[in-house]
Amino acid sequence: MSTEERLRNIISHLVPNNVNDYIEDNVTSSDDVTSFSRVSKWDKEELREFLENSPTYKPIKQKLLQLLKDPIFLPRYNMNVQEWRELTLQRALVIIKSGSISISEFNRDPMKYLLSMEMLNMSDPSLSVKLGVHFSLFGNAVLNLGTEKHHLKYIKDIDSWKLPGCFGMTELGHGSNVQGIETTATYDKSTQEFIINTPSDSAQKFWIGNAALHGQACSVFAQLYIDNVHHGVHVFIVPIRNPDGSVVENVRIMDNGHKLGLQGVDNGRIWFDNKRIPRDNLLNKFGDVQPDGTYVSSIQSKNKRFGSMVAPLVGGRVLIASSALNAAKLAMIVATRYAYSRKQFGSKGNENPIISYLTHQRRLFPMLAAVIAYTYPIAQLKKIYCEPNKSAQNVKDLHVWSSGLKAVVSWTKTYILQITRECCGGQGFSSFNQIAGFKSDLDVDMTYEGDNHVLLQQVARNILVELQKGRYTITSANHGSSIYDADFQIQCLKWRESNLVQSLSARIMSHLDQGRSLEQGWNSNLDIVTFLGKAFVDRVTMESFQASIKKASNSIKPVLELCRNLFFSWRVSEDLGYFLCNDGISHSTAQKIQDSINHLCSEMLPVGLDLVNSLDIPEQFIHAPIAKADYMSEFRYGLERKY
Amino acid sequence: MSTEERLRNIISHLVPNNVNDYIEDNVTSSDDVTSFSRVSKWDKEELREFLENSPTYKPIKQKLLQLLKDPIFLPRYNMNVQEWRELTLQRALVIIKSGSISISEFNRDPMKYLLSMEMLNMSDPSLSVKLGVHFSLFGNAVLNLGTEKHHLKYIKDIDSWKLPGCFGMTELGHGSNVQGIETTATYDKSTQEFIINTPSDSAQKFWIGNAALHGQACSVFAQLYIDNVHHGVHVFIVPIRNPDGSVVENVRIMDNGHKLGLQGVDNGRIWFDNKRIPRDNLLNKFGDVQPDGTYVSSIQSKNKRFGSMVAPLVGGRVLIASSALNAAKLAMIVATRYAYSRKQFGSKGNENPIISYLTHQRRLFPMLAAVIAYTYPIAQLKKIYCEPNKSAQNVKDLHVWSSGLKAVVSWTKTYILQITRECCGGQGFSSFNQIAGFKSDLDVDMTYEGDNHVLLQQVARNILVELQKGRYTITSANHGSSIYDADFQIQCLKWRESNLVQSLSARIMSHLDQGRSLEQGWNSNLDIVTFLGKAFVDRVTMESFQASIKKASNSIKPVLELCRNLFFSWRVSEDLGYFLCNDGISHSTAQKIQDSINHLCSEMLPVGLDLVNSLDIPEQFIHAPIAKADYMSEFRYGLERKY
Repeated sequence: MSTEERLRNIISHLVPNNVNDYIEDNVTSSDDVTSFSRVSKWDKEELREFLENSPTYKPIKQKLLQLLKDPIFLPRYNMNVQEWRELTLQRALVIIKSGSISISEFNRDPMKYLLSMEMLNMSDPSLSVKLGVHFSLFGNAVLNLGTEKHHLKYIKDIDSWKLPGCFGMTELGHGSNVQGIETTATYDKSTQEFIINTPSDSAQKFWIGNAALHGQACSVFAQLYIDNVHHGVHVFIVPIRNPDGSVVENVRIMDNGHKLGLQGVDNGRIWFDNKRIPRDNLLNKFGDVQPDGTYVSSIQSKNKRFGSMVAPLVGGRVLIASSALNAAKLAMIVATRYAYSRKQFGSKGNENPIISYLTHQRRLFPMLAAVIAYTYPIAQLKKIYCEPNKSAQNVKDLHVWSSGLKAVVSWTKTYILQITRECCGGQGFSSFNQIAGFKSDLDVDMTYEGDNHVLLQQVARNILVELQKGRYTITSANHGSSIYDADFQIQCLKWRESNLVQSLSARIMSHLDQGRSLEQGWNSNLDIVTFLGKAFVDRVTMESFQASIKKASNSIKPVLELCRNLFFSWRVSEDLGYFLCNDGISHSTAQKIQDSINHLCSEMLPVGLDLVNSLDIPEQFIHAPIAKADYMSEFRYGLERKY
Repeated sequence: MSTEERLRNIISHLVPNNVNDYIEDNVTSSDDVTSFSRVSKWDKEELREFLENSPTYKPIKQKLLQLLKDPIFLPRYNMNVQEWRELTLQRALVIIKSGSISISEFNRDPMKYLLSMEMLNMSDPSLSVKLGVHFSLFGNAVLNLGTEKHHLKYIKDIDSWKLPGCFGMTELGHGSNVQGIETTATYDKSTQEFIINTPSDSAQKFWIGNAALHGQACSVFAQLYIDNVHHGVHVFIVPIRNPDGSVVENVRIMDNGHKLGLQGVDNGRIWFDNKRIPRDNLLNKFGDVQPDGTYVSSIQSKNKRFGSMVAPLVGGRVLIASSALNAAKLAMIVATRYAYSRKQFGSKGNENPIISYLTHQRRLFPMLAAVIAYTYPIAQLKKIYCEPNKSAQNVKDLHVWSSGLKAVVSWTKTYILQITRECCGGQGFSSFNQIAGFKSDLDVDMTYEGDNHVLLQQVARNILVELQKGRYTITSANHGSSIYDADFQIQCLKWRESNLVQSLSARIMSHLDQGRSLEQGWNSNLDIVTFLGKAFVDRVTMESFQASIKKASNSIKPVLELCRNLFFSWRVSEDLGYFLCNDGISHSTAQKIQDSINHLCSEMLPVGLDLVNSLDIPEQFIHAPIAKADYMSEFRYGLERKY
C-alpha cells in the first residue's frame, strides 16, 4: 500500500476504531492497566489523607457528614424561587439545631467553622451561602467589629437563628469600592441615636443575602457623620424585620429576584428612611461615639480604620477558594469516572472508553493535576487563617494569599466546571449529574467578596511594595535543566514573576517620567498587574505543592510528582509566548514543555481513575448517575429520580 | 519626590482615582470622545445594514418582530419545569398559528426559515429549540428523507402542529457515533410491517426533544434487518402518542428531567417494545424495502447511504453557529453599555466608567471585534446553505464550514457569555440582565448536533484530504510586513494552517512507519487535529471578513479594519507559543502583536459604545435593565419586575 493510499485510508475514518488497544473492555478501575505507567500504584487511603490533611478534625467532619445524610439534604432541582428558599431555610434550620455551626466558637476554632462550611457547600451551595451570610458576615461583624455589649446581646440569638442576620455592605452604586457607599449614619445627640438613611436609589443596599425574606437584623455599612463631620465608614446593627416577619417602620425591602444560581438564597434590596437606632447599635471596636457626640478611635487614619472594618472579610475569601476547589474536585470525579466507563466508537461490542481519546485526556488530566496542586497552598492558607497569634508576616500573607488564591482558584474552578460539562456531553447538561448545578451556583464567586481582577491588584501591589522596599529577590532565567526538575520548575515561575514585577515597576516609572499621573501609569498597565497576580499564585502553588511532596512517602510521591509536572507544563504552555518573547526559556525547552503534555497524559491514563478516587471528597456527595460504577443501569426503565 | 516615594504613593492606591480623565462624566454615548480615536465616526444604520446583510428579508423579519411583541414573549424566569414547558408550548402555538415557520416552504426558502429561527432564539432559546426539533429535525427528516407519500400524509399536519414531532436519533449508549445505535427495525414480510425494538437500556432514545410531553410521532433511527441481513441505519416514522396525549401501546416514555437550561423543552427517553409500524413508515428516499422484503437503494455503500441520511442535519449546525453569534452580540451589548455607564472608583462625584479600566477593555474589546469578524463567514455559510443548486464544492464547503464554524463560534459564544457575566459583576448574575439565561440555555450547543471536538476532526480530515490530493497550497511564513496589513494577517494564519496540516501528515506517516495502526496515528495527534480545525476557522474568518471590508464604504471601513486588527492580534496572541516555536513570526513581530492589543483597545475606547449600538440585534430583545440609558432608574423603589 502506498503512503498516499494509507493516508487516504486513515482519513476515510472520521474517528478511528480501536484507537486504544491497551485499555481493556469494561474498565471500571484503572488497576488493570497500571503496568503501562511508570507511576506505580499507591495506597488510596494514604493519598486521601495526604490531600485531606486535617486528622484532628475527622470526628467533627464525620458528625456533620452523618447529619447531612438526612433525606432533607438529598439533591432537588425542579423548584421555583419560593420553593428553593423554603427548602434552603429548612435545611439551614436542621444545621442550626444540630449546633454544628456556631459563631460563638468561631474565634476559638475557626478551622472547625471552615471545614463545616466546606461540607455544607458540597451538599448545597445555597445552604452554605445562606448560613455564610448569617454567620461569616453578619455574625462575624458582631463578633469582630462589636464589643462585649454586642456579644452579650446578640451572639446567642445568632447561634440559635432567633435573630437571622444580613450583611448590608454592597449598594447598587458601589460594589468593589466600598468606601464610596452613600448610606449615611448621622448621630443625633439629643436622643443618642443614629439616623440611618438611604439618600438615593443608587444607595439602596443591593444583593443582601437573607434580606428578601428571613433577615431580622442587618449589619449596615454607612458613612458616619457627627455634627456634619465625616468620620468614614462604620458598621451598625439595624433591625429590618419584626419577629413576626413584617418589615419594621422606616425600612423598605424589595426582592433581587431570580438569578443564575443560588436560588435558595433570598437576596434583597433595602432602603432606610431616616431609620433611628440606639447609639449602642454602632459596632464600636474600632471607633466609637460618646453620648455627647465625641468621636473616639484608637486608629487615626480613616483608611486604616476602614481596613480594620473589612479585615474580617478575609475569611470569606479563604472559604470561597477552598469551596471552589472542592466543587472542581467533585466535577473531576464525575467527569473522569464517566470518561473511563463511557464508550464511543471502535469495533462493535468493544468500543473505546472516551478517556482513550487525546482530546479527552488533554482536557481532563491537566485539571486533575491542578486540583491536586491547589490543595496545598489552600491548606497552607487555611492554616495561616486559623493561626491564633498571627505575626505581621502572617497577616500580610493571609491578605495576599487569600486574594490571589480566591481569584485564581475560582477562575480555575469555573474553567473546570465548563470543560467537565463538555467532556460529559449531553449528560453534563443534566442537573442529575451535578456539574450543571455547581456551574450555576458558584459562578458568582468570581465577582463577590472581592472581584477577582481587583483582588489580583492587591497581590500585585504587595509584590511591588516588596520590590520597592528591597525585600524582593530577583530570579534569573535557567536555560539548562530538565523540565521535570522541581527546582527548575520553581525557578522558571519565579523568573516570570520577577520579570513581570520589574517591567511593571519600569513601566510605571516611565509613565511618571513622561509627566503622566501615577494612576494613569497603574491603569495603563493593568494587563501586567493582572498577569503578575496570576504569576504569583502559580509560583506559590508550585512551592507549596513541592514542599508537601518532599514530605510524602515513596508510595504516593511518584503520582504527586506526575501531577506537579503536568501542572507545570500546563501553566507554562498557557503563557508560552511570554516566556519565549522575554527569553525566560529557550525554544528547545518550550518545545519540550509543549510535547510533555501528551507524554504526561499517557502516564496519567492508567492511573487517572484511581487518582480521582483518591480525592478528598466524601462519596456521599457524589449523586451523579454517570459517576456510578455501572452508569447504564442507573438509567434503566422505571427508575424514577425526584427532581 | 523620589522615584521610590512616587512608587510608594502609587501602590498605596489599590485601584487608582481619575484614571481616565478623557472619558467625561455621564457618558451614555461615546460620541463625545470620538476625537481621540483615529477611527472616525460612521453611519450607524449603514454599519447595521452591512452586518445584517439580508435586505430582501427585512419585511419578513419585521413581521416576526411584530409578532414577538406579544406579551406572551416577555421574559419570564421564576418557573418550575412544568410551567416552563407549558409557557414554551403556548409561545410555540402563537408562532405556529401565525404561519411564520413552515416546513412546506423550507426547501423553497431556507433563508426565511433560518432568519425566523434566529429571531425566535433571541427571544427564547427554549422556544426555538422546541420548534427546531419539530421542524428542522422531525419535519426536515420527513421532507428530505421521505418521499411524496410522506409529504402528502405528514407535511400539512407538521406545519399546523397537529402532529407534533420528535427526532429519535441519539440513544443513551450512542451520541457522536450514530452508526453504533442499537435500536432495530426488523421487516416482517408476512404483515408488511417493521418491528421497532429497543434491545437494551443503552438503546433507549435519550434527550429526545418533545418526547416527555407533546410529541406524537418520532422519526426513529434504527438498524434495518431483513431476513437477518443488516442494511444499516434507516429512519422510520413511529407514532408514540395518541392525539389525546396518551402513550401508544408498546412504547414507553420517561422524562429527562431538569437541566442546566432549556427548561421549556420537554426532553424525554423512549423505549420501543417490538412496536409494529406499516411498511410505508420507512422514510424511503435513499433506501426502500419492497413488500416481499427486497431491499433497494440507489446508493450501494452503507456508509454513503448513512451520510445521505444525516446530511440534512447540516442546517442545525448553521443555525447553531448563527444563533450563538447573536447571543454573543446581545451579551456584548448588555455588558458594553453597562461598562460605559457603570462607574466605580475615582474622585467622589466623578467616578470612572468601568470601561476606562484596561482590565475591562482587554476583556470586552477583542470580543467585540470577534463578534463582528464572525458575522461574515457565517453570512457566507448561510448563503452556501441556501444555494438552491449546490455545486460539489458548495456541498463540501457547507460540510466543512458548518462543522468548523459551529464549533468555534459556539465556544467563543460560551467564552463571551462568561466574560460578559463577570464584567457585569453581580448584575451579570441576575437573570433580569439576560446573560445568565443565555449562559444556561445555550451551553449545550457545544456538544449537541455534533460534539465540537468531533466536528473539528471533520474539518481537519478535509484539509488532510486536500493535501493528499495535491490541492492544498502550502503558505510560507512572512517575516516582513506590518501587523496591520490584511495580506500579512491572512498569510500568517494560512502559514499556521499549512504548517499544522503538514506536521499532522508527517506525524501520522511516522506512526505508520513505526508499524502502528492508522487509528493510533490519528488518535495520538488529536491535539494537532483540533488545533488544525480551529486554525482553519481563523483563516476563513479573516478571509471572509477582509473580502467584505473591501466592499465597505469609506465611512464604515476604518472601524471594520480596527476590528480586523484586534481580532487578528487576539487570535495570534492566544497561540503565540506555536508561532514562535515554529518560526511563523519573529520575536519582534510577536512583541508588536502583544503590544498592539492595548493600543487597539485605546482606539476602540471612544467608539466601543457606538459599535455595540450598531450591532444587528433588534432593540426589542434587549430587556436588561443595566443596558438601559439610565440604568440606576431601572432599580428605583417600587418598580416591580415579574420574574
